[in-house]
Amino acid sequence: MADHYDVVTLGETMLRLTPPQMRRLEQATNLDIEVGGSESNTAVGLARLGLKVSWLSRLTKNGLGLLIDNALKGYGVDTSRVCWTDQDRVGLYFLEEGLAPRGSAVVYDRANSALSRMQPDDLPADLFQPGASRVLHITGITPAVSQSAAQTTLKALGLAKQAGWAVSFDLNYRARLWSPEQARVGCEPFARTADLLIAPLRDARLIYSLSGTTPPEQVLGFLQQHFPQATVVLTMGKDGAMGQAPRGELIRQPVFPAAEVGRIGGGDAFAAGLLYGFLAGNDHKEFAPGLLALALRWGAAVAALKYSTPGDMPVISHAEAARLVASESNTSSSGVSR
Amino acid sequence: MADHYDVVTLGETMLRLTPPQMRRLEQATNLDIEVGGSESNTAVGLARLGLKVSWLSRLTKNGLGLLIDNALKGYGVDTSRVCWTDQDRVGLYFLEEGLAPRGSAVVYDRANSALSRMQPDDLPADLFQPGASRVLHITGITPAVSQSAAQTTLKALGLAKQAGWAVSFDLNYRARLWSPEQARVGCEPFARTADLLIAPLRDARLIYSLSGTTPPEQVLGFLQQHFPQATVVLTMGKDGAMGQAPRGELIRQPVFPAAEVGRIGGGDAFAAGLLYGFLAGNDHKEFAPGLLALALRWGAAVAALKYSTPGDMPVISHAEAARLVASESNTSSSGVSR
Amino acid sequence: MADHYDVVTLGETMLRLTPPQMRRLEQATNLDIEVGGSESNTAVGLARLGLKVSWLSRLTKNGLGLLIDNALKGYGVDTSRVCWTDQDRVGLYFLEEGLAPRGSAVVYDRANSALSRMQPDDLPADLFQPGASRVLHITGITPAVSQSAAQTTLKALGLAKQAGWAVSFDLNYRARLWSPEQARVGCEPFARTADLLIAPLRDARLIYSLSGTTPPEQVLGFLQQHFPQATVVLTMGKDGAMGQAPRGELIRQPVFPAAEVGRIGGGDAFAAGLLYGFLAGNDHKEFAPGLLALALRWGAAVAALKYSTPGDMPVISHAEAARLVASESNTSSSGVSR
Amino acid sequence: MADHYDVVTLGETMLRLTPPQMRRLEQATNLDIEVGGSESNTAVGLARLGLKVSWLSRLTKNGLGLLIDNALKGYGVDTSRVCWTDQDRVGLYFLEEGLAPRGSAVVYDRANSALSRMQPDDLPADLFQPGASRVLHITGITPAVSQSAAQTTLKALGLAKQAGWAVSFDLNYRARLWSPEQARVGCEPFARTADLLIAPLRDARLIYSLSGTTPPEQVLGFLQQHFPQATVVLTMGKDGAMGQAPRGELIRQPVFPAAEVGRIGGGDAFAAGLLYGFLAGNDHKEFAPGLLALALRWGAAVAALKYSTPGDMPVISHAEAARLVASESNTSSSGVSR
Amino acid sequence: MADHYDVVTLGETMLRLTPPQMRRLEQATNLDIEVGGSESNTAVGLARLGLKVSWLSRLTKNGLGLLIDNALKGYGVDTSRVCWTDQDRVGLYFLEEGLAPRGSAVVYDRANSALSRMQPDDLPADLFQPGASRVLHITGITPAVSQSAAQTTLKALGLAKQAGWAVSFDLNYRARLWSPEQARVGCEPFARTADLLIAPLRDARLIYSLSGTTPPEQVLGFLQQHFPQATVVLTMGKDGAMGQAPRGELIRQPVFPAAEVGRIGGGDAFAAGLLYGFLAGNDHKEFAPGLLALALRWGAAVAALKYSTPGDMPVISHAEAARLVASESNTSSSGVSR
Amino acid sequence: MADHYDVVTLGETMLRLTPPQMRRLEQATNLDIEVGGSESNTAVGLARLGLKVSWLSRLTKNGLGLLIDNALKGYGVDTSRVCWTDQDRVGLYFLEEGLAPRGSAVVYDRANSALSRMQPDDLPADLFQPGASRVLHITGITPAVSQSAAQTTLKALGLAKQAGWAVSFDLNYRARLWSPEQARVGCEPFARTADLLIAPLRDARLIYSLSGTTPPEQVLGFLQQHFPQATVVLTMGKDGAMGQAPRGELIRQPVFPAAEVGRIGGGDAFAAGLLYGFLAGNDHKEFAPGLLALALRWGAAVAALKYSTPGDMPVISHAEAARLVASESNTSSSGVSR
Repeated sequence: MADHYDVVTLGETMLRLTPPQMRRLEQATNLDIEVGGSESNTAVGLARLGLKVSWLSRLTKNGLGLLIDNALKGYGVDTSRVCWTDQDRVGLYFLEEGLAPRGSAVVYDRANSALSRMQPDDLPADLFQPGASRVLHITGITPAVSQSAAQTTLKALGLAKQAGWAVSFDLNYRARLWSPEQARVGCEPFARTADLLIAPLRDARLIYSLSGTTPPEQVLGFLQQHFPQATVVLTMGKDGAMGQAPRGELIRQPVFPAAEVGRIGGGDAFAAGLLYGFLAGNDHKEFAPGLLALALRWGAAVAALKYSTPGDMPVISHAEAARLVASESNTSSSGVSR
Repeated sequence: MADHYDVVTLGETMLRLTPPQMRRLEQATNLDIEVGGSESNTAVGLARLGLKVSWLSRLTKNGLGLLIDNALKGYGVDTSRVCWTDQDRVGLYFLEEGLAPRGSAVVYDRANSALSRMQPDDLPADLFQPGASRVLHITGITPAVSQSAAQTTLKALGLAKQAGWAVSFDLNYRARLWSPEQARVGCEPFARTADLLIAPLRDARLIYSLSGTTPPEQVLGFLQQHFPQATVVLTMGKDGAMGQAPRGELIRQPVFPAAEVGRIGGGDAFAAGLLYGFLAGNDHKEFAPGLLALALRWGAAVAALKYSTPGDMPVISHAEAARLVASESNTSSSGVSR
Repeated sequence: MADHYDVVTLGETMLRLTPPQMRRLEQATNLDIEVGGSESNTAVGLARLGLKVSWLSRLTKNGLGLLIDNALKGYGVDTSRVCWTDQDRVGLYFLEEGLAPRGSAVVYDRANSALSRMQPDDLPADLFQPGASRVLHITGITPAVSQSAAQTTLKALGLAKQAGWAVSFDLNYRARLWSPEQARVGCEPFARTADLLIAPLRDARLIYSLSGTTPPEQVLGFLQQHFPQATVVLTMGKDGAMGQAPRGELIRQPVFPAAEVGRIGGGDAFAAGLLYGFLAGNDHKEFAPGLLALALRWGAAVAALKYSTPGDMPVISHAEAARLVASESNTSSSGVSR
Repeated sequence: MADHYDVVTLGETMLRLTPPQMRRLEQATNLDIEVGGSESNTAVGLARLGLKVSWLSRLTKNGLGLLIDNALKGYGVDTSRVCWTDQDRVGLYFLEEGLAPRGSAVVYDRANSALSRMQPDDLPADLFQPGASRVLHITGITPAVSQSAAQTTLKALGLAKQAGWAVSFDLNYRARLWSPEQARVGCEPFARTADLLIAPLRDARLIYSLSGTTPPEQVLGFLQQHFPQATVVLTMGKDGAMGQAPRGELIRQPVFPAAEVGRIGGGDAFAAGLLYGFLAGNDHKEFAPGLLALALRWGAAVAALKYSTPGDMPVISHAEAARLVASESNTSSSGVSR
Repeated sequence: MADHYDVVTLGETMLRLTPPQMRRLEQATNLDIEVGGSESNTAVGLARLGLKVSWLSRLTKNGLGLLIDNALKGYGVDTSRVCWTDQDRVGLYFLEEGLAPRGSAVVYDRANSALSRMQPDDLPADLFQPGASRVLHITGITPAVSQSAAQTTLKALGLAKQAGWAVSFDLNYRARLWSPEQARVGCEPFARTADLLIAPLRDARLIYSLSGTTPPEQVLGFLQQHFPQATVVLTMGKDGAMGQAPRGELIRQPVFPAAEVGRIGGGDAFAAGLLYGFLAGNDHKEFAPGLLALALRWGAAVAALKYSTPGDMPVISHAEAARLVASESNTSSSGVSR
Repeated sequence: MADHYDVVTLGETMLRLTPPQMRRLEQATNLDIEVGGSESNTAVGLARLGLKVSWLSRLTKNGLGLLIDNALKGYGVDTSRVCWTDQDRVGLYFLEEGLAPRGSAVVYDRANSALSRMQPDDLPADLFQPGASRVLHITGITPAVSQSAAQTTLKALGLAKQAGWAVSFDLNYRARLWSPEQARVGCEPFARTADLLIAPLRDARLIYSLSGTTPPEQVLGFLQQHFPQATVVLTMGKDGAMGQAPRGELIRQPVFPAAEVGRIGGGDAFAAGLLYGFLAGNDHKEFAPGLLALALRWGAAVAALKYSTPGDMPVISHAEAARLVASESNTSSSGVSR
């Protein structure tokens, strides 16, 4: 019989190539490698917290694809259902780290990746059994990558719903991949059926044509009105997060103060903590309103730990996050215990 | 009025990404960057020897494209006529260095590069004036990259011929880009009109369906029969090179013994030395048979120096090559003078 | 119901710390980290070849223990049954790489490691079910580490035998851990019951007090006489290997020529190839004499690939090994295909 | 006929050798190399902004000299008129980066450099034609290096004036090379004839014996009184810059906020932006007062970008600087766009 | 006749192994090496300031022990009386640097080190002559390491007292080595006889069961009451230090502002400055009250310089510290002088 | 009273700066630092073998000078009598490592170093007491550096002779510093009075105008005839060494086979072993003929160990060298013992 997962996720993972020491790409003589992808970042976070996670994707069978597979397996994610191909390529992105006024710059090089050519039939359909997982977690990036990726994500959604799994969807808008209008249409089927809808404030404003000064509470209200079935969580960067379950109260969660060592992947880490909060405190698939406050707190804790860790993935421990979640205040000291 | 070049060349230059210390790609945590492309390698060799070289290509305007441009300019190649675009991507290849029995492995990631989408109209047509250059040097790689790259190379050939420049053509077969049959057809217009035809022995056997044991002399004869207008030079790896001008004698050139620090780019370095030998000893555009022996010797010298230098490009000096060319034997010592 | 493994193994894995560029330890300013242990090296080799392997051990729950766990999981080994502890320490060894006459030097720092304090009760007894694995692979290192490690290994042997698994035992003598006499006594129960007995020639001579010039055939004969139940394989470094099944013929296998990039771990890689040869060609647990020749060839191939790969573990691919196994001669070229 | 440059400059470029990670020189096991020199830094900035710049200097023909030449060519500076020699040496400086209270420390090792022995006759006299350049840019460092360097700079000044080029002069006082009194005398001929006079506030106070608390406006007034022919620009570190054209109004320019990644070279970057502002908005050689405000803004923008870039040279892009120049406020965000 | 030292000290020195760039241990592929030990850190500080210091310890004779010995000798500490052994091991600690909320984490691996098995007889008894040293400096770490280390430290104390040397004792509580109660008992003989007693505020509160909010003045009073023979110095992190000689006045010393490059070793650097202040201004062994103010200022200066220097040891110069001690305010600039 | 040394030596030590991975200087982005100087290399070798050595020199008091001092002290050489100055500079040399046909290249940058300006009065005259050292070791490099260095070396010779020390002199010809004729004259006073004269075969031929094919025996004879007071040792690279004491027999010593990791410093290591052989086996100052054979064997052993060690200095151990000296043959294995 099949394995039982807490979370199944689907998405693209790329290699991030970064010149060391804030050098520009054109000055680089070598590049540091990190493995990163929104869904696999979340998967690593969940695995580190102790849950069982399966990551679905499509990878080219070469050294670069193996590197991604090794890294995710190493951090405890089940990759045994990844679809391997000899075709296509592994997506890359080059990150030029910079501070103001230069700023960081990204050169994406992800076109024609293996995931962008993933077909609905590449999904391990037999996995989508009732009880085989509690949650399917997807983001708005995957349907934006290509038409076939969108169809594949849609099929995964359908299979998960059919199997009775809960669905978590993170809007995660990528302006380099599609326009806000395309995103609104493309995300519609996911947002409309998600049990948990995670929306970065800026993305929500952009996608739903809300003014850049619309108050967060109003954005949250807008989302609840349109997607009444979902527990909606709005992430607001340094202003923390807020969420509301259907017919529940609005709950606010400030950030835990954190040094910024690795900026990228904070939202994915938040999603991992959030899902963990719901799943670790609940044996059933429903997102009971009573767990939202706890889930938001786990989300904030894992995100803060991620910010102080290099790389894209939240390579954190359950003990660290639990300590933060249990802390009385949202502040912490940084002494070395010896 | 226009600049005067000794050699104009056209082709794709990629970034080579290599894990240090013979690690496998899947084990890599960082990658060393080298700049490499057959034609620009040759261009760098020619520039280092003191000639004036213009490299034509198409590059994406981002940090990776600038890195290539900076490197070639830094080594003295004129890149002012490169066609820049905001579209497409910079070609990459990942080299996993290994010794027997593992061997080195290359993951090419060059599809959809800026050069592969170069159009005939992207050529700086005004450059192709009589007297603006002495030689156009092209290789069999560029027409193999894509149809539009092939058309662009053909147009460059036509313009160069029209302007009265000599044409140097290196077969340089790439099995990952086309089949031997395609290569034979695709190279035909270049081989048929080239003043200098450089043919790696293995490539020539493959493209022209000659048995793998056909003696080099016979391969050379075959090429001369089909391309009687050309001075033909056959390169044979550790067995050196041999060449013959139309109606000239067969001339043999053994290799100079060399430590193997950087294997890639040896053939391109040979081409640089060869062209230099012809051009430095001759004020006219014709490849006078009397210079072939000298040119072969320069080719062997530059190739040997390349083998003992890391990277793809022959970052060598005229003095070093001249010393080798002038040496009595083909052997050399490696003592440190102090 | 339980997982099904091809091979279960048990042993200690250490961190190897090496100063780069052949520097001496006392000159080092940084140390490269490799993960290495005879049994986990073999496990990685088997996993890379496609088999399902479980590695049993005891690890301290800190960053160093996690590093080992991540690495083995990343290369596909199942570590879910490792016994974790907050006590003790992770074994280390410092390797000072050197060439003659200086030579390499090892500073072992493995005393009081978590594995050295593993108790028989730390074994996942429920794993040892009939059919849950085909082979238990152990080496002479583990019983040498400590008394409790010896008892643990003995218990694993007993449980495996009881469950009907085949047993593979590699003498692997470590002079720093015990004397030849102690090794003879300590290895006796394993050698006496092993289905496959792997013996490095030098170790066998030392342990069984045979002269250093005893011919390999005679050493093999000695082992067969004493351990008639076992298929005996003698490894002889550059002289290859030879083996003989009970009542079978003596079969010889020369080495595949290999560049020496990483010397350590060759024997473990050989064991991986050997076991693979037996298991991949056979659905039953017995080591049918007919497979010995194939197994030896796989052993030699994987060992050769390991020698040309850095680190302790055979991070090789099935395709590479299969190509070597299928090659007509034992020689190979090292050209870059492009 | 000759090339046409926007700016010709003359000066010494050194290699900067820095221990990584804030280590002290005495603790260093390796040194990072940067290329730096006030005038070539400015030249690189101008070339990156799109102008045509020729850098005059004298370099020793060895690997170190070539490294400098490669780097400057790579960033687009014309070095074809550099005077090469087999004598003397390449100037070095060792930078020990440190924060308070330790502070950074510099060990200069520039005595007897090739530039310090440059003679007036080493100048490419034929370059100094009317129309061959719009500006000659020099600094107070070059005349301080040695007597022959001073004579060479003076000759360049004379030739430029004769050819009708505008002259830009940056006081750039170096206490390690000469005393304030010597600097006053040595800079006199340049300050007296410069069309553009750039003066760091602290340097101006020191050289002209003004009290350390003399208000900037008063320092500017002093300079205008003594050098009435010049547009004077005073740079004041974190307090920005101010300038006044003859008979023009005093114009103030605050700094753009910038993270401090590479402190060295900020003044040279400012000079590049300043010159660009004058030249890009003006086809004639005169520094029309109406362009001063724009020029100051470009200067501040390029300096701010330099501060957030490692190394001595402003390896920035026109687009980045233009965006900053066009920004409404002097603040900027540092988000990663994706 | 014997050498004359200013200070003799005794303690354990370990290798600190740190993953670069804030990576986690489990992500590390290499480790940076630092040499660190409280007493040898202080010894290096004293030697850099110009005093003659002998460091007593026990080291295993392998590359790791030599590395420690080389480093200390290199920085000017006399190690000629170290007791060498072929047994035991060199103590290690792994530092995972992190910022809040992750924080830094230390994995100690110092059990069974050579020092932990040092015996009283391993001390160079003949060294403890009247006049052979002015001070013996010990800390509360050494008696905490093991019983034999405690006995050895006690014997050193007795010998020093007998020889008429002054004794300096730093409480330096290590929670990983013993409990507060054990520390109180274990430190008693040292605190009761020390001429100089250095007490970190937090340690003093813990060891003597004072509340975490006991005001520093009260803690100081407590210590003076119990150890009336000692000049007591209380260190309070960012709040500076305060001290009082028997029958002297309470003297306060704020910190010098310092960037935090290397946090570890600040207290040891403070002790070095403090001892230097007493010894450099005094030819006699007594700690005259009149020198306490100066000593505290030297302590603060050396600690501040240490904070802005990487590694554990205060690799600073006398000139730097003297400049800070002599500065009017406690603030400093960080400009590069050139 | 003064310290007692086995050997006092005098000379210049430089920093060697080398681009890693065989890159060319012009391609370098960083440089590895090594400390090297013929006399200090020999001093380190002697200290490692257990003798007490004092190195005399003149060093500039900056981070570079301290680096050299730290390194030599760290390896056990007494540097307490080095003359420090705030003037001049630390000598540098840039090594571009290369294999044939490119070869290694050195860029010397040692002019105007602190040592080159050392004056006879900078010598610690009080050191040169009878019995304060057994040997003064000098080389032909120091008198070649400058006139004042030559005078200083001559004074040291005179003082040593006066104090009754033995004198060891290594011709060590440096073609970059003086001509063969100058060397002959400059070395005369040293060669004429040396008790031990070490002469590289090639240097001896050059300096004394002997043909490049003069047989070694004849060169040795020539030297003995001219310098009859000396035990003469001729070093012949891969052909080993030979020596003869006055009225003694010619003794030959082949090389010990050695991998070539660090080529530079082999001769200095040989000198260290040679001197050790004489001094360790002899309590008196005379070089008794009976020890020459042993001394040559020690010389060959230390040289061989140096060749397999990176850097310029023979960082070897007494045990390693003794093992080689005691080995039956001149061959050795390179296995890892574990």
